[in-house]
Amino acid sequence: MGWEFWTKQLDEEELVVDGGFEDYSTTTGSSSSSSRAAGMNGTGPSNLVDPLEDPLPGVGTYEDFNTIDWVREKSKDRDRHREITNKSRQSTVALLHSISDAFSGWLLMLLVGLMAVLTIAVVWFHLVVGSCYDFFCISCVYSEESHVSASCVCLFPLQGAFAYVVNYLMYIFWALLFAFLAVTLVRAFAPYACGSGIPEIKTILSGFIIRGYLGKWTLIIKTITLVLAVSSGLSLGKEGPLVHVACCCANILCHLFTKYRKNEAKRREVLSAAAAVGVSVAFGAPIGGVLFSLEEVSYYFPLKTLWRSFFAALVAAFTLRSINPFGNSRLVLFYVEFHAPWHLVELAPFILLGIFGGLWGALFIKANIAWCRKRKSTILGHYPVIEVLVVAALTAIIAYPNSYTRMSGAELISELFNDCSLLDSSQLCGYKQVMCISSDRPAGEGLYTALWQLALALVFKMMITVITFGMKVPSGLFIPSMAVGAIAGRLLGVGMEQLAYYHHDWFIFKGWCSPGADCITPGLYAMVGAAACLGGVTRMTVSLVVIMFELTGGLEYIVPLMAATMTSKWVADAFGREGIYEAHIRLNGYPFLEAKEEFEYSSLAVDVMRPRRADPALAVLTQEGMTVGETLVESTHYSGFPVVVSQESQRLVGFVLRRDLLISIDNARKRQEGVVSASQVVFTEHAPTQPDDAPPPLRLRGIMDLSPFTVTDHTPMDITVDIFRKLGLRQCLVTHNGRLLGIITKKDILKHMAQIANRDPESILFN
Amino acid sequence: MGWEFWTKQLDEEELVVDGGFEDYSTTTGSSSSSSRAAGMNGTGPSNLVDPLEDPLPGVGTYEDFNTIDWVREKSKDRDRHREITNKSRQSTVALLHSISDAFSGWLLMLLVGLMAVLTIAVVWFHLVVGSCYDFFCISCVYSEESHVSASCVCLFPLQGAFAYVVNYLMYIFWALLFAFLAVTLVRAFAPYACGSGIPEIKTILSGFIIRGYLGKWTLIIKTITLVLAVSSGLSLGKEGPLVHVACCCANILCHLFTKYRKNEAKRREVLSAAAAVGVSVAFGAPIGGVLFSLEEVSYYFPLKTLWRSFFAALVAAFTLRSINPFGNSRLVLFYVEFHAPWHLVELAPFILLGIFGGLWGALFIKANIAWCRKRKSTILGHYPVIEVLVVAALTAIIAYPNSYTRMSGAELISELFNDCSLLDSSQLCGYKQVMCISSDRPAGEGLYTALWQLALALVFKMMITVITFGMKVPSGLFIPSMAVGAIAGRLLGVGMEQLAYYHHDWFIFKGWCSPGADCITPGLYAMVGAAACLGGVTRMTVSLVVIMFELTGGLEYIVPLMAATMTSKWVADAFGREGIYEAHIRLNGYPFLEAKEEFEYSSLAVDVMRPRRADPALAVLTQEGMTVGETLVESTHYSGFPVVVSQESQRLVGFVLRRDLLISIDNARKRQEGVVSASQVVFTEHAPTQPDDAPPPLRLRGIMDLSPFTVTDHTPMDITVDIFRKLGLRQCLVTHNGRLLGIITKKDILKHMAQIANRDPESILFN
Repeated sequence: MGWEFWTKQLDEEELVVDGGFEDYSTTTGSSSSSSRAAGMNGTGPSNLVDPLEDPLPGVGTYEDFNTIDWVREKSKDRDRHREITNKSRQSTVALLHSISDAFSGWLLMLLVGLMAVLTIAVVWFHLVVGSCYDFFCISCVYSEESHVSASCVCLFPLQGAFAYVVNYLMYIFWALLFAFLAVTLVRAFAPYACGSGIPEIKTILSGFIIRGYLGKWTLIIKTITLVLAVSSGLSLGKEGPLVHVACCCANILCHLFTKYRKNEAKRREVLSAAAAVGVSVAFGAPIGGVLFSLEEVSYYFPLKTLWRSFFAALVAAFTLRSINPFGNSRLVLFYVEFHAPWHLVELAPFILLGIFGGLWGALFIKANIAWCRKRKSTILGHYPVIEVLVVAALTAIIAYPNSYTRMSGAELISELFNDCSLLDSSQLCGYKQVMCISSDRPAGEGLYTALWQLALALVFKMMITVITFGMKVPSGLFIPSMAVGAIAGRLLGVGMEQLAYYHHDWFIFKGWCSPGADCITPGLYAMVGAAACLGGVTRMTVSLVVIMFELTGGLEYIVPLMAATMTSKWVADAFGREGIYEAHIRLNGYPFLEAKEEFEYSSLAVDVMRPRRADPALAVLTQEGMTVGETLVESTHYSGFPVVVSQESQRLVGFVLRRDLLISIDNARKRQEGVVSASQVVFTEHAPTQPDDAPPPLRLRGIMDLSPFTVTDHTPMDITVDIFRKLGLRQCLVTHNGRLLGIITKKDILKHMAQIANRDPESILFN
Repeated sequence: MGWEFWTKQLDEEELVVDGGFEDYSTTTGSSSSSSRAAGMNGTGPSNLVDPLEDPLPGVGTYEDFNTIDWVREKSKDRDRHREITNKSRQSTVALLHSISDAFSGWLLMLLVGLMAVLTIAVVWFHLVVGSCYDFFCISCVYSEESHVSASCVCLFPLQGAFAYVVNYLMYIFWALLFAFLAVTLVRAFAPYACGSGIPEIKTILSGFIIRGYLGKWTLIIKTITLVLAVSSGLSLGKEGPLVHVACCCANILCHLFTKYRKNEAKRREVLSAAAAVGVSVAFGAPIGGVLFSLEEVSYYFPLKTLWRSFFAALVAAFTLRSINPFGNSRLVLFYVEFHAPWHLVELAPFILLGIFGGLWGALFIKANIAWCRKRKSTILGHYPVIEVLVVAALTAIIAYPNSYTRMSGAELISELFNDCSLLDSSQLCGYKQVMCISSDRPAGEGLYTALWQLALALVFKMMITVITFGMKVPSGLFIPSMAVGAIAGRLLGVGMEQLAYYHHDWFIFKGWCSPGADCITPGLYAMVGAAACLGGVTRMTVSLVVIMFELTGGLEYIVPLMAATMTSKWVADAFGREGIYEAHIRLNGYPFLEAKEEFEYSSLAVDVMRPRRADPALAVLTQEGMTVGETLVESTHYSGFPVVVSQESQRLVGFVLRRDLLISIDNARKRQEGVVSASQVVFTEHAPTQPDDAPPPLRLRGIMDLSPFTVTDHTPMDITVDIFRKLGLRQCLVTHNGRLLGIITKKDILKHMAQIANRDPESILFN
């Protein structure tokens, strides 16, 4: 089951559209595509020969940038399962097939979990790329402050300011080179590899189709460029993109199993689990990963997926922990272990951090969206390479002089989270007397310098992240957000510490902060701040707290984390309900129906449905009496048509998709004799009586959905939206007293919501 | 906000039906009951005066043992929310009301979490009751083996066999007394206080109404009798009932907030969180508690409830941890802390434990259900007090001689989970040389005795639990199941240990089990066994593993726990898909539509709907032309009627509930002039033209649901079941080509499922 097997499998199965875009679905509907339609015909008389009894390839599949029909997909899978179960009673081979089918889900999860070993490749590649900075080891003498490691070969021993300048220039050179490589590779091979990928994955999981977004080119290019982008010193992280990478892996693994290859709904269950694996790998937090997938990413998350996600996340975490190729610190980013107690009074600064995190989150989202909108609408968007190079240069130039911005985001967070111990040579621990850990710690000169540098780093990080996130390179938000929060938290923590040192007789410190004791842990403040800022940006709550809990392993810090995260969410929500991912979804116009937000307006279905009062009547097909030439397919652009008994009665019979209709008519014209433009199209069970000289009718009942969803015109839209969300509908027909009135699609709902919220309804782009 | 305030509030609000049964809903529909109907009339002409514009008390509420309509309840709440939001723009008071409304959910959660302090009362009461065993301190001399604590006052110093007999008799006496008190109190004051309560809570959360099941009498009596039952030495635990107690508390707290008092759906969200709090309190595992609620108990669990449950569970855990009135060991039952590594080879015995757990789980469920069925159908069920006394006597007589059955289940598990250290004087640690911890440990005589006793205890616990669970006393299953598993695990663990000691040259031990090292941890085996058995009985997976993980705090044991739990679930599922709670739900005939199991048959809606082909036509109302006397209410027993345009067309207009119809007609007859039996009942927007001498028509459009759910007759039942589950429907109408054909209720679906599975369809009892 090596790589070659997969790629071969993929090449055979896929129709490569253009550079890097794979087409996973066009050929996937061959065997089970219209089994539901066939199953629904089961009650019809069996002597009728339906030309569609053998389902046509393509019927029941979806076009790119379209929404899937969850109900149909799940029904298809149940049909398939039923068929296998029924067959399993007949022979031993079928029984084995049935058993292997039942366990294929678990096997797939095992593989998804095991793919965590791929991360090792990422880490290794990161090491290789990172060592470039040290390759031309110019200033070994200048080593105590510069970036150069001690292990490099000293070619040109330089000293003083000159060495510093040379190092500075080399740093900028490497940053520009890596940034250039990253953006060029993305543009050349896999345009979908840019960004964090989480907004798109959310949309895909909600039932949208973006071909190639989770393909092998995206996987390869994203993995490579992710490392390059992180190494270029840009203010971005690799945790979000790792979720995308994990989903790509899972999507490719799905091709090994018919069950998942051919069913869009089942595939999405696997992708949900893969998102959990991604976070599990990034933070070493399997439970947090599962909750992240449940809370933030997934749309349809049944209990079965919960179990399987947990299994996969656990396999991933365990695999990494067992192999542990580079030592603990490399894989789990910032494992901290302190058990210093905190006091109830400290809740006040923690909540303050929550407010800061919420404010920053709201501000960041607004600024970033404004900037991205500018990129979309102005000339800026035409020169992504130049943009990346300029930002990379700017970042490198400003970042180098300050040691806290020069080090990578993960290193910075790790340093801020950890508490000072005797052995710590960091500037942050530049206290005056570091003789004994539990002694009081007045700030020394080193610490003051560090605080200044941190404050500058905070301002810089806050600004640069706004323009960095959304560029055409892989970029995650977790690390930059956490870095901002960690810096703010550490600053506040040190401030509190000094306050407690100099004023331990104040009433707020009395009773728990005795003069000699080390009562405040600045590292804890950094952790709380990081959680608050990440929460403000993404609006995660439970999963964020659980991830942090798994990082530290101490139940005692859940309360501070929870307080900060909740405050941060409330404050940020006051400025706008959307997290950064939802904001980007809306920016891109994806058809995503947010499950978290309630529909709060009092409109009725009749206000949202098409046609509106002034519009021409709804385009419907009648169940008999129309001819092949007459069907509405050519004259309209709708992607589906209701079928009614007759134009007069408007009583609903079923629903036909344009794609299925086109494929079936095309096929019938090619294969069946006597099908001409004048042939009647019938959707009834029994063929109508016709004149003898008429061409034979084309029976298409097989492609009709006999159970379309309907609501009445008086149904409040909040209920309709609920139905759409919970059942995963594409469209719903509207009736009044049993007569067909109109149709509501997901896009209509989103447009309606945009209109009410005073946004441009045309910003919703796809179906 | 003391207890008095609550009870006063309750007494005012409730209609006490009979001893211990409260009626929470009859008076709850006064203000917002038909606001949705009113909202739906918004598009109608406003000059029509509807007699029902002011909603009647009772309209929109439910009768006992009926299923709620989730869609209607949630819509009601959204209407209420909308109203408050609209008003909030008008005045500052309304704005404050709006803000307090928004935060009332969190405040309620805080209160639910804080009620964890009630557990302290339980623990305290438990101590008091437990000390009864020591009160007549007869055999102080005999103390090293007997149950007597060292602190008792030595009244009659006895020795030898005589003291043993006297102690034995006293033990039996106390056991019988406590058991008698428990069963009598339950029967006299709160019949609903018996059992674990989890099956009923699952049913209630799925939308069923059982009045008084979560009332104050149930709370008080269950708390008291729970302690008595546990103290009586019966093989039962207090963890499951604690979930019930927590739900009672939450239900009573709901009365403080209009939002939750008046809405059945919102109340259920709070109850879901309370279930999480119950487990959080019982095991000190907040995350595990939330997942338990999500996986095992809840039906409708939106993300909002996830956050709030987590918050409440955390408050509960933190409160208990902060107060910690009796020392750690009392509140969190068996906190263990060992970090001994395990080896991959050990997965084999862990999986073996999983198989044992699965087998025992399946066997237990079958045996327990058979026994409960016998209790229901034979004379046994008429003498619950005698049954409890007999079982208690049997338990006491057999349990006393064996120290492992004499101690409480929690103590037993705690002893089995813990590893031997030098200080441990337990028989289980009767190794030959206990000089140095890390030395090899050949079993000594003490250990052999302990093993024999454990084996006997295992057999006894397995048998007695089957007849204990389901008796008319509060009884949880967690502790007995875990005890069985822990014994089996410890036995296997000690076996492995001795095997490794005597045969450390075998190839399976080579490389990781050097002669001098202590390579096998029997306590870990006990923990894995406990998880496996509990998993086999309840079919929990993720939540079980997370609870165990939170008990130990070590990520490294997740894999063994996961392996055993999964194996256990698979093995048990092979014998029957139901866990013990689902089995009891079915035994009691509750209308519970299991969300975990897929509907796997190929029936269509037309096969399930009423009326069947041979039955008389569906009872429908026409939208006009019927009179008050004519309505079907008297002649039929249906709880709702579809309204159609006319008998000929059968085109659907809406749906009216019997209860609402009855209340409205009654009210109109009393209050409105001229409403007589000959008055026409109209459901149309405009009043029909009538002869001048006719009595004025009674307009009832306001109580009609204008948006009934419909499916077509061809809809596969798997989709229909999905709709029922996801939307929480009570009934759904079936149409064919726009004409009304029939109706499907939740009960019809359950009957159909029972019929297909060859069970008695009449076992489904309620609507």
